[in-house]
Amino acid sequence: MARPQTDIEAGREELLDVVEELVRKRGGVDLSMTELAAAAGMSPSNLYRFFENKEALLEAAAGRWFAPKIAIMEEVIAADMPSREKMYQFFARRFVLMRDQYRADPDMFKSYLELGDQHFEVLRGYVDLGDHYLSEIVVQAMDEGYLVDLSIDDAVSLINQMVQVYCNPEALLYIDHKLSEDKLGRIVDTIFIGLGRSFHHKAGSGQPHIKIVP
Amino acid sequence: MARPQTDIEAGREELLDVVEELVRKRGGVDLSMTELAAAAGMSPSNLYRFFENKEALLEAAAGRWFAPKIAIMEEVIAADMPSREKMYQFFARRFVLMRDQYRADPDMFKSYLELGDQHFEVLRGYVDLGDHYLSEIVVQAMDEGYLVDLSIDDAVSLINQMVQVYCNPEALLYIDHKLSEDKLGRIVDTIFIGLGRSFHHKAGSGQPHIKIVP
Repeated sequence: MARPQTDIEAGREELLDVVEELVRKRGGVDLSMTELAAAAGMSPSNLYRFFENKEALLEAAAGRWFAPKIAIMEEVIAADMPSREKMYQFFARRFVLMRDQYRADPDMFKSYLELGDQHFEVLRGYVDLGDHYLSEIVVQAMDEGYLVDLSIDDAVSLINQMVQVYCNPEALLYIDHKLSEDKLGRIVDTIFIGLGRSFHHKAGSGQPHIKIVP
Repeated sequence: MARPQTDIEAGREELLDVVEELVRKRGGVDLSMTELAAAAGMSPSNLYRFFENKEALLEAAAGRWFAPKIAIMEEVIAADMPSREKMYQFFARRFVLMRDQYRADPDMFKSYLELGDQHFEVLRGYVDLGDHYLSEIVVQAMDEGYLVDLSIDDAVSLINQMVQVYCNPEALLYIDHKLSEDKLGRIVDTIFIGLGRSFHHKAGSGQPHIKIVP
């Protein structure tokens, strides 16, 4: 972690430690500035010297949560690798990090999800950044002859949908035991082999299509 | 809907209407037999003539919720179609039904999700039934030359993961606008073209793999 530059920054880091401890103890619902001030043993007006409002506090907490994930994305994007490997690392390394966090302290993990659910706006920038980096990998993949006949946006959207269980932290609460790096690798392979190509029925499966969708 | 055979069955259907109305009004959290009896204008002991306990009531409510989805699965499985079309219909028709329910009454939909979250055990049978039918489609697909080099269980698991956003009702709350039958069709095509096949790097993308996953 970067060394704090000023007393204010050092104070912020300490307060974020208190936030983590609070969220661990009492969950993430309706955390207030008053409660944080009490837990930190300072007056609310003193707390406002460090965070001017609750939004600034939540943004800082989200920043700390996402920092290692953003570092992974930047490292993968900068690496000199074929697009398939890059896409795998892009999703797998963040998945493994998230799963480690979940398994180390499931209750804490759930509390952070509650906090995120209530303040989705602070997550929006992270989601957009992920899409931005994914679109860079998509462009490289197209240069290498994959993901043909798709717009970049459609490719990003379809890939996000197909790997969603490896990106959405909620999935760990329900199907942790069904998720694995090996399966994610197979999904990424499937995307590179099949996405954007036209499907042609093989001999023996060419009966006329019966449309029964309304 | 099947015509009730007895007074008890007719009474159950009426009580399930009252449950729906209650869930619509006050959400799905911590619904009690006492509350249901009051809403139905009957004594708790009378209510127990129709449902012997809360589990029996929730099972009946889940049964009503899932009945049209099970009908779709059975109809698709029985249809004479190539496996690719069958898989598409299997997921698309239930997705469209679920999306219609969500858009018709988002709050009611959320309340049912809450109810389901609290009583996941009653959903388990439905999930297992879906896996059972999907494995039948997988076997047909293998007969037609798709999904090679995979066990049936692995194929079912990987397919469920890749189409998860079209099966999980929660996804509608967050990304309804990003989901479409067209994209689902492209994902199913991708599965049929690519899943189970080995990935070979194309010329120009064959640099040695740098493993940066821990």
